[in-house]
Amino acid sequence: MVDLKEKFLASLDKLFERKQFKSLKELMAVMEAADVAEILAEKTPTERVFLFRLLHKDQAIEVFEFMEGAEREELLSSFTDSEAASIIEEMSDDDRTALFDELPAKTVKKLLSHLSPKERGLANTLLNYPPDSAGHIMTTEFIDLKERMTASQAIDRIRATAGKKETIYTSFVVAPDRRLRGTVQLEDLILAAPDVPITDIMDTNPVFVSTSDDREETARTMSRYDLQALPVVDSEERLVGIVTFDDILDVIQDEATEDFERMAGIQPVDENYLEAGVLTLSRKRLTWLLVCIVTQLFSTTILEHYTFALESVVALAFFIPLLIDTGGNTGTQASTLVIRGLTVGEIEEADLGHVLLKESLSGLLLGTVLALLASLRAWTMGTGPGVALTVAISVVGVVMMGNLVGAFLPFAAKKMKVDPAVMSGPLITTVVDVLGLLLYLEVARRLLGLVA
Amino acid sequence: MVDLKEKFLASLDKLFERKQFKSLKELMAVMEAADVAEILAEKTPTERVFLFRLLHKDQAIEVFEFMEGAEREELLSSFTDSEAASIIEEMSDDDRTALFDELPAKTVKKLLSHLSPKERGLANTLLNYPPDSAGHIMTTEFIDLKERMTASQAIDRIRATAGKKETIYTSFVVAPDRRLRGTVQLEDLILAAPDVPITDIMDTNPVFVSTSDDREETARTMSRYDLQALPVVDSEERLVGIVTFDDILDVIQDEATEDFERMAGIQPVDENYLEAGVLTLSRKRLTWLLVCIVTQLFSTTILEHYTFALESVVALAFFIPLLIDTGGNTGTQASTLVIRGLTVGEIEEADLGHVLLKESLSGLLLGTVLALLASLRAWTMGTGPGVALTVAISVVGVVMMGNLVGAFLPFAAKKMKVDPAVMSGPLITTVVDVLGLLLYLEVARRLLGLVA
Repeated sequence: MVDLKEKFLASLDKLFERKQFKSLKELMAVMEAADVAEILAEKTPTERVFLFRLLHKDQAIEVFEFMEGAEREELLSSFTDSEAASIIEEMSDDDRTALFDELPAKTVKKLLSHLSPKERGLANTLLNYPPDSAGHIMTTEFIDLKERMTASQAIDRIRATAGKKETIYTSFVVAPDRRLRGTVQLEDLILAAPDVPITDIMDTNPVFVSTSDDREETARTMSRYDLQALPVVDSEERLVGIVTFDDILDVIQDEATEDFERMAGIQPVDENYLEAGVLTLSRKRLTWLLVCIVTQLFSTTILEHYTFALESVVALAFFIPLLIDTGGNTGTQASTLVIRGLTVGEIEEADLGHVLLKESLSGLLLGTVLALLASLRAWTMGTGPGVALTVAISVVGVVMMGNLVGAFLPFAAKKMKVDPAVMSGPLITTVVDVLGLLLYLEVARRLLGLVA
Repeated sequence: MVDLKEKFLASLDKLFERKQFKSLKELMAVMEAADVAEILAEKTPTERVFLFRLLHKDQAIEVFEFMEGAEREELLSSFTDSEAASIIEEMSDDDRTALFDELPAKTVKKLLSHLSPKERGLANTLLNYPPDSAGHIMTTEFIDLKERMTASQAIDRIRATAGKKETIYTSFVVAPDRRLRGTVQLEDLILAAPDVPITDIMDTNPVFVSTSDDREETARTMSRYDLQALPVVDSEERLVGIVTFDDILDVIQDEATEDFERMAGIQPVDENYLEAGVLTLSRKRLTWLLVCIVTQLFSTTILEHYTFALESVVALAFFIPLLIDTGGNTGTQASTLVIRGLTVGEIEEADLGHVLLKESLSGLLLGTVLALLASLRAWTMGTGPGVALTVAISVVGVVMMGNLVGAFLPFAAKKMKVDPAVMSGPLITTVVDVLGLLLYLEVARRLLGLVA
């Protein structure tokens, strides 16, 4: 992409320096809100407030919606309460919920008290849905139509109400009791004869979600049916909001980040990495590190138990890191393939048998190749054929174990209705380490005829 | 979501059993194409072909677009060449490119030869753009408008050409030489007075990408500006296609999957896990496993070098797995946080110093907690204070190392214009293992006064 932002940035800096504020105002007025938001992010707090105040009201609100957590909070705090409230009042209700999620509870309470009763009620309703639900991310700004309307009446209503709606491309037909009857695409309204009843052109069986459905599920539904707006109904099947595709892009991004973190043994971090404090980050990481180190205590016990083996053949110790590292790596690979497959729906619970078979075969294959290398190394170190054979057998064993444990645990998590991604690399690595160590030392004991 | 699919499936099975094909046909006609595609996927090949032939032409094409690789290939092979070509001819050109990417080259060649010259030319053009480029995933089915049109003329043109266009919500205004002049939203056309020139309401500075831009970059641009259609221009800035938001959802999903795989040390797998062969999967995994095992050979050398230490204090060996596992885990955590931050743009190259400082501090913190636990264990095993202290110092050391190596390598990759995700868990684990081992044994030698 031709980077317009960089060009704009240069002109903007020049105008700012020369204090040509009128031109500056005009320049920002023609820029994309996303670009203005990014440029503001690069400025000092004082410049940011100054530039922000130069924006037209409508653009200011749009720019504000594009800004990031910390800068928004800081910007808000530089405004008077009524200034802040007037921005919050005009925001789309879904963006407002997202903002409130980021702000400290005290600030939210204060801002809410300055809103008009109508917007305050709305904001509270959305905030009260569970954080990861469709109800929490939806907007109530949709176009509703009545069943007895014609195409031209529908277009008139769309024209009249378009201003503050999230999308005008899909309208929602509701019964007098607000139950969802169907959806109408603007495309079909435009192509239809003016006096056709909308009931003739609407989709009478529209896909919808309920307010309590998970936002990840919501994203999947939209992606599956290629929808650009998805109706959200309450427990009595009344239409209460919609989710649009721009929200879904954020959800997909966030959920992927959460999965990446879980798979690395990190509890989901809410803030940006750069904004999160060292203590917060450490706390999010500590839990799994503790679980792993406590599990690893077994490995010390196992090794202590086999002291006699290590004392008679010290060369056995040489291969411990190689062995457990290999098991951990194959376990991580297998679990990643399975977790991702389960997450995007390519693998289903019923495929467990198929997956385990596949992982056994590929474990045998990969294990054999790696075992050749490792035992060759043992051979060149002059450990003798016994240790070389022990290493070879154990490498095949840990690779198979890594594959099977890595493939099985995500299925087990799914079965227990837990996100498969919690069966993270670190956990699987540790489990495979301990099992692999036991295997290795036991093979050595038998093969080399060691006695305690 | 109320699962309509399950309900449909039951009725469909009943009708199929009773051979009520007319009702079956009517039932499928009211179903969502995505659901029909999923139900077909669960049937036997023969039933699938039979059911597919019951679909109306238009729906058949839509269902076909929703189907997965292997089933599409198999379905195509059950058709005569001209039957297959008539489906391919009518597909959206972006979905067709995606289909051709999946099919064997020989099949593609045959199918292409049965297309009309116009569609064949188009298909070839798109196929010839690099696989991961905007040109490869775009569609040429967009609505173009001329600069001298009024709002009502524009709406007339949209009405007349809407049929085979990917979206009618954004139209593209081009000069006689096909250069992109602006974009017009249907929303604005509808709200404008009929005789307003479209140049008055179009966005004259639209965001666009070029055919050679990466599809991940394209996805990011659309997500950044919340666009539902993004123009694609050639090297002379002529408008040649558009990318729409439904393509982008797939791209984001695919790219996340690739990153997950890379971070687990797997080369990107093109097929579904269940469809990919054991050999293919093993090959994709082998490279990094080999890199890691070869790196691990150093660990055998290091341990051999310190044989005297292990022979005099066998308890040192007890803590090897715990130590290297801990280093690997913290390295994986740190690299995941940094890789994800770099990928979604939360962290930039200039933040290296900040990130390293943060990781040092959190390494010190986490290391201290874990060291306490590990040395307590050494103490209870009766290894004596020397070994306990050695373990404590080494745990703090490997955690710091894990954090710093894990945070640094992704930056290095980015600097070298490589996807940071290749600095995967397995690689970082292995590097930290080897360094950590060296640290541990050296600390032991000095602290315990061991001599060779």
